[in-house]
Amino acid sequence: MAEETRESIGRSTARVRVRFGETDLMGIAHHASYASYMEVGRVEWLRRRGVTYASWAARGLHLPVVELSILYRAPARFDDELDVETCILEVRAASLRFGYRIVGAADAALRAEGSTRLACVDDRGVLRRLSAEMIEVLERGEHL
Amino acid sequence: MAEETRESIGRSTARVRVRFGETDLMGIAHHASYASYMEVGRVEWLRRRGVTYASWAARGLHLPVVELSILYRAPARFDDELDVETCILEVRAASLRFGYRIVGAADAALRAEGSTRLACVDDRGVLRRLSAEMIEVLERGEHL
Amino acid sequence: MAEETRESIGRSTARVRVRFGETDLMGIAHHASYASYMEVGRVEWLRRRGVTYASWAARGLHLPVVELSILYRAPARFDDELDVETCILEVRAASLRFGYRIVGAADAALRAEGSTRLACVDDRGVLRRLSAEMIEVLERGEHL
Amino acid sequence: MAEETRESIGRSTARVRVRFGETDLMGIAHHASYASYMEVGRVEWLRRRGVTYASWAARGLHLPVVELSILYRAPARFDDELDVETCILEVRAASLRFGYRIVGAADAALRAEGSTRLACVDDRGVLRRLSAEMIEVLERGEHL
Repeated sequence: MAEETRESIGRSTARVRVRFGETDLMGIAHHASYASYMEVGRVEWLRRRGVTYASWAARGLHLPVVELSILYRAPARFDDELDVETCILEVRAASLRFGYRIVGAADAALRAEGSTRLACVDDRGVLRRLSAEMIEVLERGEHL
Repeated sequence: MAEETRESIGRSTARVRVRFGETDLMGIAHHASYASYMEVGRVEWLRRRGVTYASWAARGLHLPVVELSILYRAPARFDDELDVETCILEVRAASLRFGYRIVGAADAALRAEGSTRLACVDDRGVLRRLSAEMIEVLERGEHL
Repeated sequence: MAEETRESIGRSTARVRVRFGETDLMGIAHHASYASYMEVGRVEWLRRRGVTYASWAARGLHLPVVELSILYRAPARFDDELDVETCILEVRAASLRFGYRIVGAADAALRAEGSTRLACVDDRGVLRRLSAEMIEVLERGEHL
Repeated sequence: MAEETRESIGRSTARVRVRFGETDLMGIAHHASYASYMEVGRVEWLRRRGVTYASWAARGLHLPVVELSILYRAPARFDDELDVETCILEVRAASLRFGYRIVGAADAALRAEGSTRLACVDDRGVLRRLSAEMIEVLERGEHL
């Protein structure tokens, strides 16, 4: 989805399984559940680069979502295992954008793709530039 | 549900409508949604007595749920309007217990009943006694 | 957000209040909650035109979300009342697109705006053309 | 929690990780999230005995939750890994009751314990007796 304004920097995959309570009366995973799956993917992407929310929050930095975009390609159903493939699409002065592909773990078929832009803000909600150190982390590959 | 260990102190009603995303693939409101409805009822009960979360949080007081109990009597469906009837069942030194009846707004038929115990804790999570002033508020009737 | 490809057809407003469980540890309404608020707005928009999910489902028609896009402008907090202003942006052969503005009920300040495209599918998930009757309903104003 | 009215039949463990969106403004996993974790535990318990929702639903059998009870012992926080230990506490003619202990994966400290009773109903929501075959499955150990 959308043009990738720079080479995607690494890619990490997180697995989720559709919970019963995440389905709706159409019998499919409710569309809002995908925002949650993408969040799982993003947190895992950061963890594999050594970043935990706690460590950035301790320095007074937070990353609220300021843009969300999802295209739903095929329904996911209760108990389906899904792979959330996450990459960084863009790093700007005070924000970053992640891209996601959600595919069936069993069939590798695309279920949804999307992106989120996250702003970098301090404890008072004021925009803050990403430091050189933070950018270095974001450009880092997985280190497990 | 359960014995009421003292006279219930007042009763307030909040109305909710079952959201599409709150249903599950059985076509009924998912059981976890009722915890959310009861929370709406409790917040409304407090608001009608002049208590907002912000005012207590500003004094460093929080009320996390430490016990939750729900009996489901009949399913609720998408778009059903429900009335959440809330009362206080018990006030102890450092906790309080709310009771709930969730009924259909159209048919007054019981859908679920339950209770929650909330502990009174400070910013560090340490148990705190309810002050005389707080107890006075809890025993107050609605004032609108 | 986005160009409106035809005159927006009517506009209806639904009010929601941010629930405690919809906040996250940043102290603001979690970004996925807005998908739920927009759903409330869309359901209300349809209800005011005489359309209930049950009536369309009885004819074997469903409207799954196939695209979701949200721009977050300012955070909403616990207990904030929000007005979800909903309109139709586009009616195609087998899909429709709703637009949303979420504003504070007290200050009218913009919190988020977004859109969703919904496909029209039958019970087996196959795309179906919107009938002339359905389009007539969608172009109808509120009738309360 | 509560007396176990018969020997617990087997025990299975499922791991979950607290999602960002599952926290609330107190900075802890919201109490309703635990109902979701217990559901994950129950689904996993059944899967390890060869039972999938799809297989029972295909025979017109569903297991809605009719009672839910949770005691919260210590808060869980964003990104904590939790082990949901699930067992069956009771099998009756037309219902079954699962018990849960939720412990930290890192420290094994108890975070919450609870139980759910599930009714066995058919497609029309009418109570149905558990068949001998179903009871045999429930008394089966894990087979992986």
